[in-house]
This record gives sequence, structure tokens and C-alpha cells, in this order.
Amino acid sequence: MHFPKALAFDVFGTVVDWHTSIAREVQPFVQSHLPAISPSSFALDWRKLYQPAMRQCHAQGRPFVALDILHFETLRALLQQYDLDPDTIPEATLWHMAHAWRRLDPWPDVPQGLAMLRQAFPVVTLSNANIALMVAMNRHNGLQWDAILGAELAKAYKPEPAAYLSTAAALGVQPHELCLVACHHSDLAAARACGLKTAYIDRPMEYGGAPAPDAAAIQHWDWHAPSVPDLAQQLCL
Amino acid sequence: MHFPKALAFDVFGTVVDWHTSIAREVQPFVQSHLPAISPSSFALDWRKLYQPAMRQCHAQGRPFVALDILHFETLRALLQQYDLDPDTIPEATLWHMAHAWRRLDPWPDVPQGLAMLRQAFPVVTLSNANIALMVAMNRHNGLQWDAILGAELAKAYKPEPAAYLSTAAALGVQPHELCLVACHHSDLAAARACGLKTAYIDRPMEYGGAPAPDAAAIQHWDWHAPSVPDLAQQLCL
Repeated sequence: MHFPKALAFDVFGTVVDWHTSIAREVQPFVQSHLPAISPSSFALDWRKLYQPAMRQCHAQGRPFVALDILHFETLRALLQQYDLDPDTIPEATLWHMAHAWRRLDPWPDVPQGLAMLRQAFPVVTLSNANIALMVAMNRHNGLQWDAILGAELAKAYKPEPAAYLSTAAALGVQPHELCLVACHHSDLAAARACGLKTAYIDRPMEYGGAPAPDAAAIQHWDWHAPSVPDLAQQLCL
Repeated sequence: MHFPKALAFDVFGTVVDWHTSIAREVQPFVQSHLPAISPSSFALDWRKLYQPAMRQCHAQGRPFVALDILHFETLRALLQQYDLDPDTIPEATLWHMAHAWRRLDPWPDVPQGLAMLRQAFPVVTLSNANIALMVAMNRHNGLQWDAILGAELAKAYKPEPAAYLSTAAALGVQPHELCLVACHHSDLAAARACGLKTAYIDRPMEYGGAPAPDAAAIQHWDWHAPSVPDLAQQLCL
């Protein structure tokens, strides 16, 4: 296997522990407005609305919309699922919660692993997050990338091919010279279909210990690592 | 004057000393192939072809093209001006020279000033450079930004309004909440026409000591500083 010229990271789940961070961020609201719901369940239920919301955008031909806005819309839908009328909540409160996805903390191995990889490769984000979300998240958690690429540059969400191919094009590399790093088999499968190399990072706690919804979609990926520093050792030595 | 929420930097001239760096990078080629030309003159003559090349793209309705490619094309045109047939030069040599614009060093005040500003604001590039060029340049000179925005995201070169407005939109701010930092009055004037705030950095040595071609286009900008740390002191105190 030839080594890649650049690496592109999925972010939600692969880089940041959205489940723990969202549960922490929504806890005050959930305790006061939805005392029967645990913050962990709230986080998991909210995340379940993410893929359908993006698929619906694509199916309806809706012009590309920032993920921040989808987080706002799925939050309103989630509150309605819980029989809480979102119109009774101040809009500023809803936006502060929607922006909880800007305040996510990395898995503990990420800062060191990212620094190791960036010594050898350009390392960018290839996320469905919009640019303003990623800028805010990086300023929150201190991570530094070579560039923020992915959905907003492509005006297309993963797993649409444009999201992967436009990231390679912006880096001036061929698809097979770019490696997607992700903890989701579905994401890696879509990247592989576009010709990208693939590196799987195992994140068994992404869903708070529950199995990942795409666990059955496993393939033999080009690299497979329990952490980002381990991947760096496989790629940089 | 209200302070901005984010800063966007012009790069060539404002951040990096292209004249000194390009003269250094082309010196071996110029000495062996064009001994009557000084490396400094070569750099200045090359830069003169930059604005016309972008204007020609726009006038001809040519689809957006990476600045790396325009650097390659203007290099060929420059060699022809000097009566040197570019077809006699190996293409790899021409590309190595075209990529000299990826190997530019910052003015000495920039690293400290940028670090100061990033403590208070998201700070991005708003350059006509393509993303791969900026990624390579940052890896060459060690500068770190919150994001690489500008021409390639907009698919439009400055001074077209889309370059400024799409940068503000990607940051999730209104045009008047974004401040362009630049050493060129023409760039600042176009940003102001889009509603951006403006900060002028004086770079008297940009053209090796020769006067800037747009020196007469001076206006009273919102901020005016002799260096990036001085601007930071004006904005962050």
C-alpha cells in the first residue's frame, strides 16, 4: 500500500466525543425542561436526526445549508418528539443549544496524534460541519488543521462523492493520494468508492458504549488503528 | 468605530515578502539563463503580470482557475518577454519556479502579531491564492490561521465582491463585522465597497523599495498600522 500525500479527517465521532460533550452541554436545559430524559439519551436521540436531515436536504433538492442550521431544525424536531413545543423556548436558548455542536471536546489521544501526523502530512478536516462551526470548535478545543475542507467547500454533504473529490482537488492531489480517517464504515466506504485511501480509527465509546449503527458495514480498510497516535506510527515511521 | 468580530488577511505583500522570497527562489535559474536580468527585476516583472492575468480570466469568462496555474502561465509569458522560449525549459523546472509562490517568507513582525490577534479573533486568509498554495506556504513558513478562505471558496478573485462577501458568509458574520487587513489600497477599497471594515498595514519594502502602484489610491482606513503587532494593540486592548 502506497502512503498517501495528505490526510482528511472526519470530525464528529472520529476527532471529537460528541456524545459526552453534547450531554454535558444540554444537561441544564434537559434537567429543567425534560426531567424524565437523561442528557445522554437526549444526545443520542438528537444525533439520530442528523443523517435523515441531510438525506432529506439532498432528496428535496434544497440548496446547500450550513450544518448549524440543520442542528437548529433537528433540535426543534427533537423537542417536539418529547412533546415540548419549541415555540415556548426563547430562540436565543435554542441557538445556544444548536451551537453546542461547536463546543465539542476531542478524544484524549487526538492532540498528540494530530501533531505527529502534521509533521509528515497536510491534515485537513473533511466533515459535514460548516466552516464557521469548525472555526468555533477549533477555537474551543485548541485543535489546529492545515485547512477546513469538506461539505461547505463542496456544497455537498458526505457521503455524496463531491464532498470527497473536491477535498482532494483543493489539496491538488489525486483521490488515491488522499486518505480519509474516520471511525464510520459508511463514510470510509463512500470515500473508497471515490478512490480515496481509508484509515479506520476505532471509537467504541462514540455512542456512549452502545454499538455503532453501521458496525455491520465493516470492510478491510487500508489502515486500522485504535488511536490517532497509533495511526501516526503506522504512517510516519 | 465598532470592533470587528473576525479578521481576514490579504497575504501577498501584507503577510509575506514576495519580492525578497521570489528573487531568492529564482536566482539560480536567472543567473544561468538570463544573466542580464537581476533576480529582483525578474520578481517585479513577474508580479506585474498577476493582475492582468486575473482580469483577463474574468473578462473572458474563463472558469475559475487555481492561482498556481496562473503563476505557471505568467512565468511562460515572462520568459517570452525576455526572449527565452519556455518550451526549451523542462516543464518540471517551470513548475518548480511557479511553485516558488508557495515558498514565501513572512515579514518579521507577522508571527508575533498573528498570535496576538488570534487570541482575540478568528483570523483567516482572504487571498487570491488557491487552497493548495496556501496550505503549502503555511507549512513552509509555519504560519497558522483559523481557516483558508477567499478566492477558491468564492470561485472569484479579488477585487470581485464575491471574494469578500463569501468569506464573511463562511464565517457566519455580516460584512461590517469582518475587517480586511491589507497593504493595498485597491484591495481595501473593494472590501469597503462590500461593507467590510478596513485595516491598512504599511509595507514600504513590498516592491523592494519602489513605490506601490496604487499609492495614490489612499483613503482614510478604519485602522492604520506600521505592523501586525501594532494593529493587534489597537484592536485587542
